Amino acid sequence: MNVAIIGASGYTGLELIKILINHPTFNISYIANSTGEENVQELHPCLKDVIDVEVSKADANEVAKVADLAFLALPHKTSMSFAKELLNLGVKVVDLSADYRLELETYEKHYCPHEDKEHIKDAVYGLPEYYKEELKSSKLVANPGCFPTAALLALFPFIDYIDTNAQIFIDAKTGMSGAGKGLKEITHFGHLNENCHAYNPFKHRHMPEIQEKVKLVKGVDCQINFVPHLLPITRGMLVSVFATLKEDVDVNKVLEEAYKDSAFVRIRNTPVDLKSTAGTNFCDIFVETNEKALFVNSSIDNLLRGASSQAVVNANLMCGLDEEEGIPIIAYVP
Amino acid sequence: MNVAIIGASGYTGLELIKILINHPTFNISYIANSTGEENVQELHPCLKDVIDVEVSKADANEVAKVADLAFLALPHKTSMSFAKELLNLGVKVVDLSADYRLELETYEKHYCPHEDKEHIKDAVYGLPEYYKEELKSSKLVANPGCFPTAALLALFPFIDYIDTNAQIFIDAKTGMSGAGKGLKEITHFGHLNENCHAYNPFKHRHMPEIQEKVKLVKGVDCQINFVPHLLPITRGMLVSVFATLKEDVDVNKVLEEAYKDSAFVRIRNTPVDLKSTAGTNFCDIFVETNEKALFVNSSIDNLLRGASSQAVVNANLMCGLDEEEGIPIIAYVP
Amino acid sequence: MNVAIIGASGYTGLELIKILINHPTFNISYIANSTGEENVQELHPCLKDVIDVEVSKADANEVAKVADLAFLALPHKTSMSFAKELLNLGVKVVDLSADYRLELETYEKHYCPHEDKEHIKDAVYGLPEYYKEELKSSKLVANPGCFPTAALLALFPFIDYIDTNAQIFIDAKTGMSGAGKGLKEITHFGHLNENCHAYNPFKHRHMPEIQEKVKLVKGVDCQINFVPHLLPITRGMLVSVFATLKEDVDVNKVLEEAYKDSAFVRIRNTPVDLKSTAGTNFCDIFVETNEKALFVNSSIDNLLRGASSQAVVNANLMCGLDEEEGIPIIAYVP
Amino acid sequence: MNVAIIGASGYTGLELIKILINHPTFNISYIANSTGEENVQELHPCLKDVIDVEVSKADANEVAKVADLAFLALPHKTSMSFAKELLNLGVKVVDLSADYRLELETYEKHYCPHEDKEHIKDAVYGLPEYYKEELKSSKLVANPGCFPTAALLALFPFIDYIDTNAQIFIDAKTGMSGAGKGLKEITHFGHLNENCHAYNPFKHRHMPEIQEKVKLVKGVDCQINFVPHLLPITRGMLVSVFATLKEDVDVNKVLEEAYKDSAFVRIRNTPVDLKSTAGTNFCDIFVETNEKALFVNSSIDNLLRGASSQAVVNANLMCGLDEEEGIPIIAYVP
Repeated sequence: MNVAIIGASGYTGLELIKILINHPTFNISYIANSTGEENVQELHPCLKDVIDVEVSKADANEVAKVADLAFLALPHKTSMSFAKELLNLGVKVVDLSADYRLELETYEKHYCPHEDKEHIKDAVYGLPEYYKEELKSSKLVANPGCFPTAALLALFPFIDYIDTNAQIFIDAKTGMSGAGKGLKEITHFGHLNENCHAYNPFKHRHMPEIQEKVKLVKGVDCQINFVPHLLPITRGMLVSVFATLKEDVDVNKVLEEAYKDSAFVRIRNTPVDLKSTAGTNFCDIFVETNEKALFVNSSIDNLLRGASSQAVVNANLMCGLDEEEGIPIIAYVP
Repeated sequence: MNVAIIGASGYTGLELIKILINHPTFNISYIANSTGEENVQELHPCLKDVIDVEVSKADANEVAKVADLAFLALPHKTSMSFAKELLNLGVKVVDLSADYRLELETYEKHYCPHEDKEHIKDAVYGLPEYYKEELKSSKLVANPGCFPTAALLALFPFIDYIDTNAQIFIDAKTGMSGAGKGLKEITHFGHLNENCHAYNPFKHRHMPEIQEKVKLVKGVDCQINFVPHLLPITRGMLVSVFATLKEDVDVNKVLEEAYKDSAFVRIRNTPVDLKSTAGTNFCDIFVETNEKALFVNSSIDNLLRGASSQAVVNANLMCGLDEEEGIPIIAYVP
Repeated sequence: MNVAIIGASGYTGLELIKILINHPTFNISYIANSTGEENVQELHPCLKDVIDVEVSKADANEVAKVADLAFLALPHKTSMSFAKELLNLGVKVVDLSADYRLELETYEKHYCPHEDKEHIKDAVYGLPEYYKEELKSSKLVANPGCFPTAALLALFPFIDYIDTNAQIFIDAKTGMSGAGKGLKEITHFGHLNENCHAYNPFKHRHMPEIQEKVKLVKGVDCQINFVPHLLPITRGMLVSVFATLKEDVDVNKVLEEAYKDSAFVRIRNTPVDLKSTAGTNFCDIFVETNEKALFVNSSIDNLLRGASSQAVVNANLMCGLDEEEGIPIIAYVP
Repeated sequence: MNVAIIGASGYTGLELIKILINHPTFNISYIANSTGEENVQELHPCLKDVIDVEVSKADANEVAKVADLAFLALPHKTSMSFAKELLNLGVKVVDLSADYRLELETYEKHYCPHEDKEHIKDAVYGLPEYYKEELKSSKLVANPGCFPTAALLALFPFIDYIDTNAQIFIDAKTGMSGAGKGLKEITHFGHLNENCHAYNPFKHRHMPEIQEKVKLVKGVDCQINFVPHLLPITRGMLVSVFATLKEDVDVNKVLEEAYKDSAFVRIRNTPVDLKSTAGTNFCDIFVETNEKALFVNSSIDNLLRGASSQAVVNANLMCGLDEEEGIPIIAYVP
């Protein structure tokens, strides 16, 4: 089955290439970025002698000729106009941008006017543990944000036990790769090395994404207070969910029950760390209480479970394959 | 004025030496560790050609002969028996261990039986912003823990505005130097590099210290839920306090008011970072709200404001000096 | 084909497990360390839900029952006594220790008395680019040291053009994983982070290994002057070979010619970096001259090409498989 | 004595400010960058509550009114035109750029046409150990490059014992701050973290600087082969000089003799590390031999001994002060 990768220059594009090279069913038939005219080995020198494909200037008609499904690793706004073309040409789309993640009103409030209102309502939110059946018949998947992936997997199992009149706080920490390959002050080595700080506290655009999904999936309307931090590491993401329990409950049992059939969620009995999930699609979760205070602690690889490997799981489901097919599970340890 | 440093082998001992070398009034007359018979340049090769003092095997009678005040950078339990001797010999003590930080009952619950009950009630908690007058006449100062220092400086100004029936959460991140120079798995480079994780969530011994001081200083009995994390950096500490406001309040005004006379607290209008305080005694604080949700964000150097430079501030006050005398304020940037 | 991994606790043992899980032909039938009685998921928590095998206390007879070939990731000295047993029981051995790398006299001078003189002369040095034919019929392979692997692959193509009366210098830099998982001062995070230094200059035991192989493979008796450094990173190794050319030569052509048939050597036209080889079995090489001065610059993953993946290449050859079978080629980038 | 800092935005400008704040004699009377109209606390937030000075748009006439000496932390080319003005106005200059470091011909070959030929021959090369007397009467000091500082301090003592017909190799490693605060791909965190590589091998502009000074100071015309590497750390520099001795010599005695009167060179009996010199003006040196092969190993803080603190030592000498006045000697350890 032929697939295309659009937006091959960035980190998530590279991760898609790396996963799909070893995928038993998907075959990379088209790689594109905004400029083209380069071999993928020049674009990503680490791929020398590994894969030999030309990088094209992205063109929807070309994609439609050679691929059944396209992964879009594009900036938001750019993504929806390209997705629209592909969908109209009958190509399945897994969109890694924010463009189809939110309901129209939420999207336009936090991002920009939407340019593909036709398809937005068809998009399935690509968190496989909670949307598996919908994903199987979907033609357009909105791959979740990295923070929402780790936060929702931690929060959902407990939402029924949480006092949602009390504040819910999420303190999240991400490696710098979440900020992308572009040159920015916050990702300058001299700034980030031996440093750590919050950014956009209570204002990050993943906050409304988390809040909206809690409402859609669990029917609970509550205020999520989200503070992300930048860590001086390259990959990995750690999330602390702090909430108040309504009553005593065996939190580990709740967690085990919630994910007993999940291939990619591992329950831990010690606090989760970044390294055990780096390089994999796993989400590790740990839970602890202090009387009514609840601490749910999750870890993912922000580029994989938070982006590219989750995208391939979604593509597996869309194409009738086993969700585990070709998905990385072996961690970057040490 | 002659001072002694007992426990010179560890990180906080080294920081004390580094500060006191340049102190205009204090003169290091005695340096000791548990073994002695070494020059301080052998113990800390970075001090070659900087200071030339023998390291003695710690002996309280020798200290009393040559110093008016002693800094104890010893493990808890070891510290109280040494402090007791020094106090009985008339030597002033700044104790960097936990031994005199807590009320007797709290201490014995979380640490071990206390061996110097006589002096524990004389000890002043060395957080200068809140105990300045008591420090000026004190002969025994209990230097606060690193996490409590950063957490209390963030929390105290807001305690009157916080709904203390709602949960208060503290998510803290520390550099590895807080774990000391001894060889441990969690401070092995292969474990910590490119990693991050919580440890002792809701069970760390700094949690009762924070809770007790909130009660003593502010008269408020509330549950503090504290989760520390280890960062892959050497020095620095970041604290997030999450709480619920009772009512609308101008949080920046509260903060400015609380610290308008403080030499070592800086109010920031962007989230605080580690680097701006590393190498200094400053505590930087930033505050943000989301309706009733409160986020107070503080940063200190865990070895300085969280230990050694705060100890010297306390010694300055105990000896009638200006609190700013000889205190480092120039950050390790870049 | 069933294989055993002896010495599963350390970094190279873990890397062997990670590679062999995905190997198309080899099946891990036995995993052991010095204590046993543990599941491999407890030993390496990152393997939770990935592989479910008991870790045994190493026993040669048990190995012989269930495996045709064993990888020994043991300390030197321990390794040779275990290898001896296995070889006598008819099990093929890939030994990752130093025990069979050197000629007897060299070994005993730099390590300790040898305890398996019988087999030492049968051992083939497992650098596939230079010993491929011998490896195919070998029953005992001595897997090269990490530094010698990177140094010899850089040096061998040029040895005929180098003035071996002039000094040859090798300045090498390794990530800390080369120093192993045990707790040591030099691998304490507080020591190594933001630091870098040479160790054992001109005295490291990989120096005689390099020198001996230059003599054996190329017939050239010359003095190699080797200085390794420790880098504040986890994995990767960079080698600078500095030598003097006898005459003008097209060094890039020499390099291309030497490795035109090598699956795992990549010639670069810019200086090599660590990241492009991390996670893979590749050795990247770059060469530059300044009149008669020669700089050959190679990069490998010290745990893979410098240990575990090279071991699997060797096992592939010993078992009549394609050398590329199951060998990792996708780098840890970013 | 009033001094000016021109070029305050970069790392070396900040280091100058940090040193001069605590200098007992020099008083910062003027700080400038290319834009001005900002307080230094906005330019460098770590200086909040530490120093309160306006940053001006650089103007030579203004400098001449308020300062006797100016430190120029400007890019090369920009620096010489500003220096020329200042010198003509009678202001002493310590220039941290490359503009006055080289003889005219060498400069123009490796940089660009020189715009202040009048003063270039008056410039004294600011390596105090070798130019102390000349510095005392100088009005224009060319502060050495970071690599040449570490390399020459290592090389000079041995030059008489080295066979200069054999190749001399220098393998150097620098922290990223040497590459400056500007956004570049090689200093992007995603590129540099967990990475290391050479750059400009045999082509870096510090190579002719080293070569020229060996000729000028020691009268020896030899080829220096210089390969710098970038390390994934912020500050510090390590240099390995590899050469061939003409005869047996007690290398430690040579080193001790060379620097017996030097306040800022420390001879080590183990390989030097970055941390022991970080934050200081020290150059640590270690030497080892392997028969005729020589390894001289030096460490400096690239921003201090390699730039700003050496500049202040030079200013001290130019102004008749003790060279040690106000110079940092306490390392960033841990």
